Amino acid sequence: MRLRGKMLIAQGGGPTAVINQSFVGAVLEAKKNPNITEIYGALHGVEGIVNEEFIDLTLETEDNLRLLAGTPASALMSTRVKPDRDYCERMFEIMRHHDVRYFFYIGGNDSSDTVRIVKEFAVDEDYDLVAVHIPKTIDNDLMENDHTPGFGSAARFVVQAMMGVNQDNRALAGVYIAIIMGRHAGFLTAASALARVFDDDGPHLIYCPENPFSVEQFLADIKRVYDKYGRCIVAVSEGISDEQGEPIIAQLMDCERDDHGNIQLSGTGALGDELAAEVKEKLGISRVRCDTYGYLQRSFAGIVSDTDAREAREVGEMAAKYAFDGRTGSVAIKRVGEYAVSYELVDLSLVAAKTKVMSKNFFNKDANDVTKAFYDYCRPLVGTRLPEMGRLRAPLIEKTYQKRFEQQD
Amino acid sequence: MRLRGKMLIAQGGGPTAVINQSFVGAVLEAKKNPNITEIYGALHGVEGIVNEEFIDLTLETEDNLRLLAGTPASALMSTRVKPDRDYCERMFEIMRHHDVRYFFYIGGNDSSDTVRIVKEFAVDEDYDLVAVHIPKTIDNDLMENDHTPGFGSAARFVVQAMMGVNQDNRALAGVYIAIIMGRHAGFLTAASALARVFDDDGPHLIYCPENPFSVEQFLADIKRVYDKYGRCIVAVSEGISDEQGEPIIAQLMDCERDDHGNIQLSGTGALGDELAAEVKEKLGISRVRCDTYGYLQRSFAGIVSDTDAREAREVGEMAAKYAFDGRTGSVAIKRVGEYAVSYELVDLSLVAAKTKVMSKNFFNKDANDVTKAFYDYCRPLVGTRLPEMGRLRAPLIEKTYQKRFEQQD
Repeated sequence: MRLRGKMLIAQGGGPTAVINQSFVGAVLEAKKNPNITEIYGALHGVEGIVNEEFIDLTLETEDNLRLLAGTPASALMSTRVKPDRDYCERMFEIMRHHDVRYFFYIGGNDSSDTVRIVKEFAVDEDYDLVAVHIPKTIDNDLMENDHTPGFGSAARFVVQAMMGVNQDNRALAGVYIAIIMGRHAGFLTAASALARVFDDDGPHLIYCPENPFSVEQFLADIKRVYDKYGRCIVAVSEGISDEQGEPIIAQLMDCERDDHGNIQLSGTGALGDELAAEVKEKLGISRVRCDTYGYLQRSFAGIVSDTDAREAREVGEMAAKYAFDGRTGSVAIKRVGEYAVSYELVDLSLVAAKTKVMSKNFFNKDANDVTKAFYDYCRPLVGTRLPEMGRLRAPLIEKTYQKRFEQQD
Repeated sequence: MRLRGKMLIAQGGGPTAVINQSFVGAVLEAKKNPNITEIYGALHGVEGIVNEEFIDLTLETEDNLRLLAGTPASALMSTRVKPDRDYCERMFEIMRHHDVRYFFYIGGNDSSDTVRIVKEFAVDEDYDLVAVHIPKTIDNDLMENDHTPGFGSAARFVVQAMMGVNQDNRALAGVYIAIIMGRHAGFLTAASALARVFDDDGPHLIYCPENPFSVEQFLADIKRVYDKYGRCIVAVSEGISDEQGEPIIAQLMDCERDDHGNIQLSGTGALGDELAAEVKEKLGISRVRCDTYGYLQRSFAGIVSDTDAREAREVGEMAAKYAFDGRTGSVAIKRVGEYAVSYELVDLSLVAAKTKVMSKNFFNKDANDVTKAFYDYCRPLVGTRLPEMGRLRAPLIEKTYQKRFEQQD
């Protein structure tokens, strides 16, 4: 017999363009299930649970939920709090008080660890609780997942941005540096490669946190490209680090740290400005520009990978299906063929507090570009119907005016 | 009898998302006109003219031109060179050598001045030349125009960005500062207001270059909003200046200057970082983030206002129609009713080297927000079918767990 009771759902960590798809997928599935007596949403993730700030989602209209699914960033609002065991125990206490029997937490690897610990308390106390982690992160760094919901849309933003930059940088030549999100994993930065259409399109260089970053190599690489094309577009992960694993940005400025001990990488243009200054000074190139894509990448309204949106909806729906079948775990996306996906429920400990990075075969040997293997991996994730870029092909006219003067010489 | 001969077209200044619509509009119209013997495109604006770098556009396929029309940034490539009289004379010399009879230059107010001077040389030399300036600028700062091609698409980018930021900042509260393009005119920054859907949506504060910027006022404004909502979103023009008209950014760092004597405002995160540091330090708010929208605003692939694209195409087509009718001038967009446009050919001197800024009735009395008059002005320009944003409306559940403890006290 299936467990009958309340369901509680929350969202944690950085927002994405499709995290609400997962939320709505789980809630709509729950509304169809007679064993679910009420659907609670916790405001601000785990904070809302310990503060007992729940809203009654049973009262939401289906139309509003569908509108929300297409709205970027966490509808239930989020938190950066990373719960310790005491915090998790308190979460469990409050869930038990409210007779919550199904707990869903949408988030990254830290969130999955939280679900694991809460479930442990339930087991210790012999309290029947089904707990399911629903994956999301634009960083694409969750173990067991071929890719994660949120990544495809953020990657699509980066690709469309870089497609425009290609045109802009060709029209007004110079060195252009884009700083792209990614603390430990370079997937999002690497995705910029998909913007290439013509032979000389950028990004001409790609630097990810998986490979030690050397300013000397960076400058030498830019010089080589600039000498060839008279311009150079560079994609750099915010998380690039040196041989010792020390973030380059931490070497440039005092950094803020969050509850997870992580340095603040986004919300500042410092890394890009510093790298641009190096290029100007050391290579003597006058037009050097930098954009830090920042928060636009993760919650831009209206740039969504259709593939990503569909899968994000499905992981939410599948999470509910697994939970209502009594199964605890983390929903993972597996790749099938060229290209489809299947979903599996994996053990929470396989995902919790672990980080996946790009595999070695995704990088070229100089660690400044991606390989065809990465293109093949990434292309289906950014969705269909990308903008198409054109270029004039007309031939040059003979310089008869200059020729006349040359003949007179 | 109509003048028979070659046409020359070029693009100058900063790229936009729709500048190629104007280019293609003029070229396709020329292809239909039997008086146009050949269609030349100059590469890199005026530089391509003095360097005699012309391509033969007569050889472009119509399909490729249509693909190009939807491609952001100058297909003919651009230049930052602002020609003096000698430069214009040389341009005229080369046009005469190639028997160019129709000259089109797509650009802002500097470009219109260039067209004016070249035409003067033609008149002085009694050489038949029809010269038409085609307007474009995301800054929306051309005289005689209700608005300019390129602005609507850049504004749409800003609106969609800010719609996402609204969700993101509500999910993870703090102060968020967006630095938006605009040297003398704040139209693009002001457009961010159109992202507001709910009562407490941002941007909560908007600062434009038209009004003297005071850091004290800025901090006091943010404190007031933050105390009310626990968060604050601010839109700031890159060109904000103090009472003396000195750009705030120039007070913060050494700045690069271009041929026009303009300070480099974009391509660096310095202004935002500095303002964010002020907020952190003076108001003691810990989570302060800044994004500088930079080049993404003007050439993002796939974010285009349909209204802007159509009008950009039409100004190009109208420019050709006026020219082939023997009329020199600058094409201007006039607003008709609620909402349509008409086109006029105005005297070059009315547009040349002048700058339009936002009118006073577009600002509230504290100069930190826009008025309904601005909404009415701006709304039709960003195009149709903006993303729709949702929000949960479900009521809070009673805090029975906390209540139990309170009763025990």
